[in-house]
Amino acid sequence: MNYWVKIVFSLLILIPLLCSPSSFAAAVSPEMFAVNNTWMLVATFLVFIMHLGFATLETGLTRSKNTVNILFKNTLIVAIGILTYALMGFNLMYPGEFSLGQFFGFAGFGIGTDAAGLTSAYNEGYTYWTDFMFQAMFAATAATIVSGAVAERVKLHSFLIFSTIYVAIIYPLVGSWKWGGGWLDEMGFYDFAGSTLVHSVGGWGALAGVLLLGPRFGKYVNENINPIMGHSMPLATIGVFLLWLGWFGFNGGSVLSANPGMVSFVFATTTLAAAAGIVGAMFTSWSIQKKPDLSMVLNGCLAGLVGITAGADTVSIASSVIIGFFAGILVVLSVILIDRIRIDDPVGAISVHLVCGIWGTLAVGIFSTNPEHSFGVQLIGVLAAGAMCFTSAFLIFGLLKLTLGIRVSQDEELRGLDVGEHGMEAYNGFQIFTTQ
Amino acid sequence: MNYWVKIVFSLLILIPLLCSPSSFAAAVSPEMFAVNNTWMLVATFLVFIMHLGFATLETGLTRSKNTVNILFKNTLIVAIGILTYALMGFNLMYPGEFSLGQFFGFAGFGIGTDAAGLTSAYNEGYTYWTDFMFQAMFAATAATIVSGAVAERVKLHSFLIFSTIYVAIIYPLVGSWKWGGGWLDEMGFYDFAGSTLVHSVGGWGALAGVLLLGPRFGKYVNENINPIMGHSMPLATIGVFLLWLGWFGFNGGSVLSANPGMVSFVFATTTLAAAAGIVGAMFTSWSIQKKPDLSMVLNGCLAGLVGITAGADTVSIASSVIIGFFAGILVVLSVILIDRIRIDDPVGAISVHLVCGIWGTLAVGIFSTNPEHSFGVQLIGVLAAGAMCFTSAFLIFGLLKLTLGIRVSQDEELRGLDVGEHGMEAYNGFQIFTTQ
Amino acid sequence: MNYWVKIVFSLLILIPLLCSPSSFAAAVSPEMFAVNNTWMLVATFLVFIMHLGFATLETGLTRSKNTVNILFKNTLIVAIGILTYALMGFNLMYPGEFSLGQFFGFAGFGIGTDAAGLTSAYNEGYTYWTDFMFQAMFAATAATIVSGAVAERVKLHSFLIFSTIYVAIIYPLVGSWKWGGGWLDEMGFYDFAGSTLVHSVGGWGALAGVLLLGPRFGKYVNENINPIMGHSMPLATIGVFLLWLGWFGFNGGSVLSANPGMVSFVFATTTLAAAAGIVGAMFTSWSIQKKPDLSMVLNGCLAGLVGITAGADTVSIASSVIIGFFAGILVVLSVILIDRIRIDDPVGAISVHLVCGIWGTLAVGIFSTNPEHSFGVQLIGVLAAGAMCFTSAFLIFGLLKLTLGIRVSQDEELRGLDVGEHGMEAYNGFQIFTTQ
Repeated sequence: MNYWVKIVFSLLILIPLLCSPSSFAAAVSPEMFAVNNTWMLVATFLVFIMHLGFATLETGLTRSKNTVNILFKNTLIVAIGILTYALMGFNLMYPGEFSLGQFFGFAGFGIGTDAAGLTSAYNEGYTYWTDFMFQAMFAATAATIVSGAVAERVKLHSFLIFSTIYVAIIYPLVGSWKWGGGWLDEMGFYDFAGSTLVHSVGGWGALAGVLLLGPRFGKYVNENINPIMGHSMPLATIGVFLLWLGWFGFNGGSVLSANPGMVSFVFATTTLAAAAGIVGAMFTSWSIQKKPDLSMVLNGCLAGLVGITAGADTVSIASSVIIGFFAGILVVLSVILIDRIRIDDPVGAISVHLVCGIWGTLAVGIFSTNPEHSFGVQLIGVLAAGAMCFTSAFLIFGLLKLTLGIRVSQDEELRGLDVGEHGMEAYNGFQIFTTQ
Repeated sequence: MNYWVKIVFSLLILIPLLCSPSSFAAAVSPEMFAVNNTWMLVATFLVFIMHLGFATLETGLTRSKNTVNILFKNTLIVAIGILTYALMGFNLMYPGEFSLGQFFGFAGFGIGTDAAGLTSAYNEGYTYWTDFMFQAMFAATAATIVSGAVAERVKLHSFLIFSTIYVAIIYPLVGSWKWGGGWLDEMGFYDFAGSTLVHSVGGWGALAGVLLLGPRFGKYVNENINPIMGHSMPLATIGVFLLWLGWFGFNGGSVLSANPGMVSFVFATTTLAAAAGIVGAMFTSWSIQKKPDLSMVLNGCLAGLVGITAGADTVSIASSVIIGFFAGILVVLSVILIDRIRIDDPVGAISVHLVCGIWGTLAVGIFSTNPEHSFGVQLIGVLAAGAMCFTSAFLIFGLLKLTLGIRVSQDEELRGLDVGEHGMEAYNGFQIFTTQ
Repeated sequence: MNYWVKIVFSLLILIPLLCSPSSFAAAVSPEMFAVNNTWMLVATFLVFIMHLGFATLETGLTRSKNTVNILFKNTLIVAIGILTYALMGFNLMYPGEFSLGQFFGFAGFGIGTDAAGLTSAYNEGYTYWTDFMFQAMFAATAATIVSGAVAERVKLHSFLIFSTIYVAIIYPLVGSWKWGGGWLDEMGFYDFAGSTLVHSVGGWGALAGVLLLGPRFGKYVNENINPIMGHSMPLATIGVFLLWLGWFGFNGGSVLSANPGMVSFVFATTTLAAAAGIVGAMFTSWSIQKKPDLSMVLNGCLAGLVGITAGADTVSIASSVIIGFFAGILVVLSVILIDRIRIDDPVGAISVHLVCGIWGTLAVGIFSTNPEHSFGVQLIGVLAAGAMCFTSAFLIFGLLKLTLGIRVSQDEELRGLDVGEHGMEAYNGFQIFTTQ
């Protein structure tokens, strides 16, 4: 039997004792509501930090001639993600039902702006606006994941159009299947914080984009697979640490309240999975590549985090270490394999977010302490999300390819997208001193 | 005598009141006080992060030969800001009245060190020390804004002297007019988190400094306006993301409690304005400059944030998008215009903080949902702060110019302030590898 | 007499009054527990950020040919620290008594996984998992401190083995003397957040490592002391700001609850000490070196923070400024002196963490407002920790030197550890543009 049930049960007993006999009938106390909401806002800004993490990670793992372009894309995606989520994503994702009047702009500016949306009458864990903010920060991450995979060759305006559609419609649609109380939820599918609903959604989009774009110029020449190294490992490392930091909010906030037992447990599983992912990737990289590769270890950390995301609240501490460790192994093998089959993913986004997103979702079916979770249903969720996301991303990118084009000219690619798309360079007048 | 004893004593009195029927007469419960204070401390460290944001933004947008100097200035300003605020700024700004005994060092170590300062008897939202910390972090930002505009040519010691005086006296003086309950407050002037009281105060100081310093060598030669590009766009982007992050505390903390409805609403307006600022700047830059400029988009983000700061709690969600979008347009036009009239502001500080600070303050008069706010009074506040700040900054910089000098020698400027002022360089022995 | 005793005593009296007659015999209200636990989780992620701070600081202050190696080490240390702390450190450090069954893996998966560990029955300030997470983040910092001092010449696998043993056994052992309720605690030794138990522990390990490794090639040649400059001052500055940020959690979390008066007081002393450390280091550096050195000022900030860590809750506000200012002076003198006696510490870790850790611990004996704290007992703590840590670090590094070796070959050192240990470089294909 599940010890969480016991905790919840004990807490249920405690609540009526808490203050006067009749006061808190249906809602939590104002104090508890304030704590919950404060934690959710903290989680919101932590997820926000992930966007800086993605920006620096992708920049670090690519070439300096495309740096401005990547920074630009990642800045814009946050803005587009938040604005489109305000316009339609939030309402599309959560009510679970479709009605045109309820569809745009905070349900026609209904509940959000009335008093109930700002008290625990809306939700015991947070206000309407906290809800929107937390979910909007999530939405933008899905598109950012695509950004890394298509980097160094995608046309800026086509990518921005893709992102807008993907974040505004596809992400909330798939999300509504589970988090909006849709059919996957009814089947018993479980995805705590989004191994599938966020990371795989991004990963499938990345795969579709990369297949339609083709590899970067010079990556695969005749029989050779040429590594194209990133230009700044400090930036890449900063990115991974910031992503890890943000994950405390990504997973910790997915508890949807400040529940001390639950949030702290999720902190522990999340962190241990990340640490185990690092160690797993190190051993794998050291064995296969003979020397321990920093970018593999960094991806190992993210792999552990993506892997634990689906089940952070429902697997044991020991299982979290296993899930993370295995994700760390998996990501190294996947990066090597995907490169070998000539799919060019500059930052390893497909391996981290798609492969480990699938692994994490299935791991719930294997390791969950909740007997209602089943491997079969988890697999259905993985496949359904995959079919929907890959198909629609392929369609969107495909239509863009036929119309506006999605790939810059070879000349622009060689010269760099910074000059081609933005007319500026990232490290202008950077002087290096040679005292030593 | 020991103030802890007093605290405990006060607590003893409060507790019995806590659960009895009539308990919440004047103060909040210890639980609510703890939530409020925790949120305010979180907001404090978020505002602290802004200093790192300013440091990296300014560094990124300037040349590498002045990098050590900029990092040095920005590190020192935090220290000077906090120490002078402890010494006098805090007491000058808040009591609203002037008395020498109440003026220095936490009111002669009065209220701060007694028990009431650490309970909700001081304030329902935070303790005395939280109050000091939060406000001290704000104070230092005003001087940091100046730092960016005068970069690459200002003498280090003169700038440090200016900063000390400006933060210790001018910032708290102007702040007291509104936040200390002074004459602007009595008139009905509204400035939620400081579009005028922080950003314009910094912006006017920047304008005065730049006018007295003159442009950087080589910027305006004959008829030519020569762009001087920053040396690291990743650093600049990191800076803007950190500033946005910090703004969650800057505006969110200005609620002065963890009030769930209010803080989450402010999070939403702040974020939507930033996102709209990005998009507004992108369209403007893409139209005028033909290619979307990253630094313009980054400034668009900050413009949106500065713009929403005065009215984040008092305008509607839709208005926040409009205010931010317009700020994003405004900042691009302003950066171009200010350059054209040969005012050399390396990082666009005047456009972001002064122009958009004014816009944000006036926007309260246009968009506020509170009928008591008026455009006229907002304009008076803008002009009064401008007259005071510009005049005093001009005087301080002017006196320094006549005495110590404010500009480094041309030789030092050409060689870089890093060697001239600090005898060291920022990127010593930085090796670049050319595998690719 | 001890005012803490009084507070605790009073609180004990208060609790029964808090709500209904019989419900919360021994614990705080669920609301207060939730606030406390939320703050402790925030403090946990703040301490986590310190690891990124250490990584960027060390990277910035060393040469670019060793950058990948440093980033790798610092990433691995976090993972190793957390995993070994889960395996044994946590249980070794806190129960205070040694029993094999209670020793490994969360006390044989006992208390941690039962319901009580997740409520205030475990602790009024946090859950079992929060406790583990917060302490685990601390544990990893001790090894990271060593990393900076031995940088640019230590063999990767030997360092990882050292770190594992040091974090798994030595750190928790010494920590248990005070924080586990051991003999130093019983003597009345005071170390609020770890000037000795964390920083000196790291510092002694650093000293032992550096003595056994010897200086970097080319550092001391004949009579000359050759400065080896760091390759990126922006990275170093980012590191210090992130460390300062993290310290709000390091010290603020050491209150072990969200107690408003206490946490805000600790925020104030911590920040004022950091600010004073910056100013102290600036004046000292400006006097001795004629020009104000940025790296000295950055170390001055850290010196102030390390200095205040032992007594942040028990010295007055004025004392915190004095402690920080003096630490800022001390660190500059120490860096110069240690270099002069030909101990090669690339980042100044020994001066910052050991010298100022000792200073901070002794400062409690001088400045504490608690008369029970005595200089003599503080000195005993310093010496006992020093003897234990230095000896054991010397033994571990010594055994590694005799077996696996601890220093890379001279050829590898000259070429850089990035190529030698990892087969990759940090700034590959980094292009610089020369418009200006």
